[in-house]
Amino acid sequence: MSSEISIADKQMARQNGIVQPLLTDLYQITMAYAYWKSGKVNDVAVFDLFFRTNPFQGEFTIFAGLEECMKFLENFHYSNSDIKYLKQTLPENIEPEFYLYLKELTCKDIIVSAIEEGSVVFPRVPLLRVEGPLIVAQLLETTLLTLVNFASLMATNAARYRMVAGKNVSLLEFGLRRAQGPDGGLSASKYAYIGGFDGTSNVLAGKMFNIPVKGTHAHSFVTSFSTLDDIHRVTLTHAQTREPCNLLESPCNLLESAMEWRSRVSTVIDVSTEESSDGELAALISYAIAFPTGFLALVDTYDVKRSGLLNFCAVALALNDCGYRAVGIRIDSGDLAYLSVLARETFEKVGETFNVPWFAKLTIVASNDINEETILSLNEQGHKIDCFGIGTHLVTCQRQPALGCVYKLVEINGQPRIKLSQDVGKVTIPGHKEAYRLFGADGHALIDLLQRSSEPAPVVGQKVLCRHPFQESKRAYVIPSYVEHLYKICWKDGRVCTAPKPLSKVRERVQSSLRTLRQDIKRNLNPTPYKVAVSDDLYNFIHDLWLQNAPIGELS
Amino acid sequence: MSSEISIADKQMARQNGIVQPLLTDLYQITMAYAYWKSGKVNDVAVFDLFFRTNPFQGEFTIFAGLEECMKFLENFHYSNSDIKYLKQTLPENIEPEFYLYLKELTCKDIIVSAIEEGSVVFPRVPLLRVEGPLIVAQLLETTLLTLVNFASLMATNAARYRMVAGKNVSLLEFGLRRAQGPDGGLSASKYAYIGGFDGTSNVLAGKMFNIPVKGTHAHSFVTSFSTLDDIHRVTLTHAQTREPCNLLESPCNLLESAMEWRSRVSTVIDVSTEESSDGELAALISYAIAFPTGFLALVDTYDVKRSGLLNFCAVALALNDCGYRAVGIRIDSGDLAYLSVLARETFEKVGETFNVPWFAKLTIVASNDINEETILSLNEQGHKIDCFGIGTHLVTCQRQPALGCVYKLVEINGQPRIKLSQDVGKVTIPGHKEAYRLFGADGHALIDLLQRSSEPAPVVGQKVLCRHPFQESKRAYVIPSYVEHLYKICWKDGRVCTAPKPLSKVRERVQSSLRTLRQDIKRNLNPTPYKVAVSDDLYNFIHDLWLQNAPIGELS
Repeated sequence: MSSEISIADKQMARQNGIVQPLLTDLYQITMAYAYWKSGKVNDVAVFDLFFRTNPFQGEFTIFAGLEECMKFLENFHYSNSDIKYLKQTLPENIEPEFYLYLKELTCKDIIVSAIEEGSVVFPRVPLLRVEGPLIVAQLLETTLLTLVNFASLMATNAARYRMVAGKNVSLLEFGLRRAQGPDGGLSASKYAYIGGFDGTSNVLAGKMFNIPVKGTHAHSFVTSFSTLDDIHRVTLTHAQTREPCNLLESPCNLLESAMEWRSRVSTVIDVSTEESSDGELAALISYAIAFPTGFLALVDTYDVKRSGLLNFCAVALALNDCGYRAVGIRIDSGDLAYLSVLARETFEKVGETFNVPWFAKLTIVASNDINEETILSLNEQGHKIDCFGIGTHLVTCQRQPALGCVYKLVEINGQPRIKLSQDVGKVTIPGHKEAYRLFGADGHALIDLLQRSSEPAPVVGQKVLCRHPFQESKRAYVIPSYVEHLYKICWKDGRVCTAPKPLSKVRERVQSSLRTLRQDIKRNLNPTPYKVAVSDDLYNFIHDLWLQNAPIGELS
Repeated sequence: MSSEISIADKQMARQNGIVQPLLTDLYQITMAYAYWKSGKVNDVAVFDLFFRTNPFQGEFTIFAGLEECMKFLENFHYSNSDIKYLKQTLPENIEPEFYLYLKELTCKDIIVSAIEEGSVVFPRVPLLRVEGPLIVAQLLETTLLTLVNFASLMATNAARYRMVAGKNVSLLEFGLRRAQGPDGGLSASKYAYIGGFDGTSNVLAGKMFNIPVKGTHAHSFVTSFSTLDDIHRVTLTHAQTREPCNLLESPCNLLESAMEWRSRVSTVIDVSTEESSDGELAALISYAIAFPTGFLALVDTYDVKRSGLLNFCAVALALNDCGYRAVGIRIDSGDLAYLSVLARETFEKVGETFNVPWFAKLTIVASNDINEETILSLNEQGHKIDCFGIGTHLVTCQRQPALGCVYKLVEINGQPRIKLSQDVGKVTIPGHKEAYRLFGADGHALIDLLQRSSEPAPVVGQKVLCRHPFQESKRAYVIPSYVEHLYKICWKDGRVCTAPKPLSKVRERVQSSLRTLRQDIKRNLNPTPYKVAVSDDLYNFIHDLWLQNAPIGELS
């Protein structure tokens, strides 16, 4: 790899330039001033970043976006231009010293502890715990939420597609054109890969994140050819000899060869050559000449059954004569179950008839408006698809386009803080906490347990009382066979403390973490909720604080 | 404005750096090679960019994203690093001359005609017509779609919120934390403003696009104060004299004054001071000292009725004694109709009792999970909200998170192209076309008419036969009182041909364009479809071509 690419990669790997301290809500900055003005510069706070409900009516979430959060902390700095903009924007009577203070701000006094990126995570268990100066920790809120919310949503969505598709089917992300903004597309490609997709059509995502990129041609390529006269080049060199091939006793003329094969195949699959489109044949021949080693053809421009499959087989067999194996077809419309079965049967029959055994194994890609339900339905009907190309539903998370992570103050100057709400689901769990995942003897995760940080960690083989955070009567003893402490310090003393992990490792983490979940928690229909509990100590701590803080008013 | 800001602004105004030729689907590049390899370098094509269905079950769409498309064309250039990446990624046997060809590619031979950004637009009427070398025009597809799809979706969504909220209510976009990626948030802020929002909380959007930014404080600000002892600063200078004010016969002590006012107000609104939170009062006093001219307080941290309103009134009246007028309150939970009415009544009563008439007009902001339906429901119930802060539903377009613009080849080397489909809605309208909007005498738009470019434009006062593109029997004569040619050439000879338009002008265009639509087309429930027709000439042209291209097969 040349130095030019390395530099470009490095610059891009640094982070999209728009991720910067001003990518935040104005109220973070007005609050910062109010804190500063009221003498809270040295206050020390703890914030938890967590969500309250799993997306997609599921019972798990994949945590992603941590690496981007770390880059944001690393680069956190208000430029002169930022400060000038803020001076124009905030009221005139802001004290000028505040801007000097902002100008010097960095994240050096912040400590971030987080769950490992790519892990399965659950409601209420903080994904990140941010400790440090109140003002700085507050200023990070919006950007951290932005970086975690969509990343985790996408990774979760992708992981769900992977689960319904099964291990043996390839999944490609094709969503750039429908994504929410250019970077929405780029983020989608990245986190779809992490969640279990095999590649993307997005070339820039490939370049920036080293994700496999895939793609062949569109309908417009086919319609740009009308007749066989539109082919300007018909010869190909043989794969092995690299010479014009003489199997047809002339330089390998792909047009002549494909025409001959079209006649032969048409009798086998009972489709008239007159029904099939010459423009399509011309397009496929031209594409095959350009990509003899990667011939994957779109076959639904006119009619899969009466034109596309015949033309594809003709060109694939002609390529075979030149020593090349075609890759397969893509179907982008119609009844995908029926057409994929038809295609597979056609390939088997043609392969058998002409003694080309690998023909039966040609790849069938399907790519029309596919979502989780489509795949489940195709699975039920029976299909012969090897690969799904998935766009809109995947990248916009159509079923639920936002994850609701929040960032809540849980402690200030060593004093716990609780946010009460008439909706008990919105009450926060106060204080500086640790989170543990307790595993059973079979390797499955049993429960996530939140404790006060002052408590000793749960011990393997010893029973632990796990309580529902808000319902007094819900409690159970759990004896863990293995205990995982979920938090690692990933940012301290102004730098990232954890080794950078290639995307492929995060991707593996997703799958290994999902394997620890029982199947009934992961299933699509009516999944069982995974349990998140608090220790007895934390339970009492929450409820004492609740009583202290709740106003005594009407019974309503 | 200093030169530093200008440079930063300029750089950012140029475009987010990730918008570049590689932000595309790989198949555009493989097709480019196949075209190049098959001798189609000099082919000239026409592509139409259009959508087939209005979003959000509505009957109109706002076109946005054009300016970004122009910037993309301006900067279109494969870098050396791009070419190196492509060489690694595409098959080995690609001819090296292709990369030299790519390296030199620019958009100088492309002509783009488009509808004015900010216009209302309708299904099937191309938003952009791209003409020029087949290969270049093809390579633009994905990026143009990405830039138009989300921009138009967001602008449409925002315009719909504006319509249901009415003219007299302010709308603020608060969605950054839930947006799809950092740039999803930035795009959302920009196009929400274009669609009719008044401001955003997103500071970077404010800086980059000169959009008003708004924001005050969060619940965490309130919970960071526990008692009145947490106030470190209690004095304020008088608004007029800029001296410590002596209204309370001491330097203006906002704490003392607010405490006194809290007692007085508590009897008027029948809420005990003991029920109200001292921590909240401390927070509001601190915030008021920091922002005496912009005091807008979040009042639902504990209880709007029993704590928030009382504390707010106390601090607002204390500020009033110092010569400052409070701005108002924000309510972020609960029954917004009830609470806003309660707040308004409280302000009226307090204003009257203490002879502070402007108190009745205090601003009430509401911001909890608001969508179009919430606003409609609030309108029905009656509410006293002056301003909505809208996040998730707006920025992710939750109701429909993607617009389905497509980019279709309609002509090549002067020959029309049609894409057939078993679904008639997906058949493309072939050839190089013009689009006209015909208006009635009342100024309302009557119909959009597509014609072949060779036809003369419709003439005011003369009847025009307008036909449904696919249903033979559906046709009508229209006599326009005014005819608008919808396309302007916006890119030619390698540069933008239209004068750059500030965002505020595009925003005005949205409202003026919407005013030309009849109310029944714009209404939320069961809107009337706006008509899009083709000329008689184009109708016959489509159907002749259809017959020529459709394979003769089974009747199914």
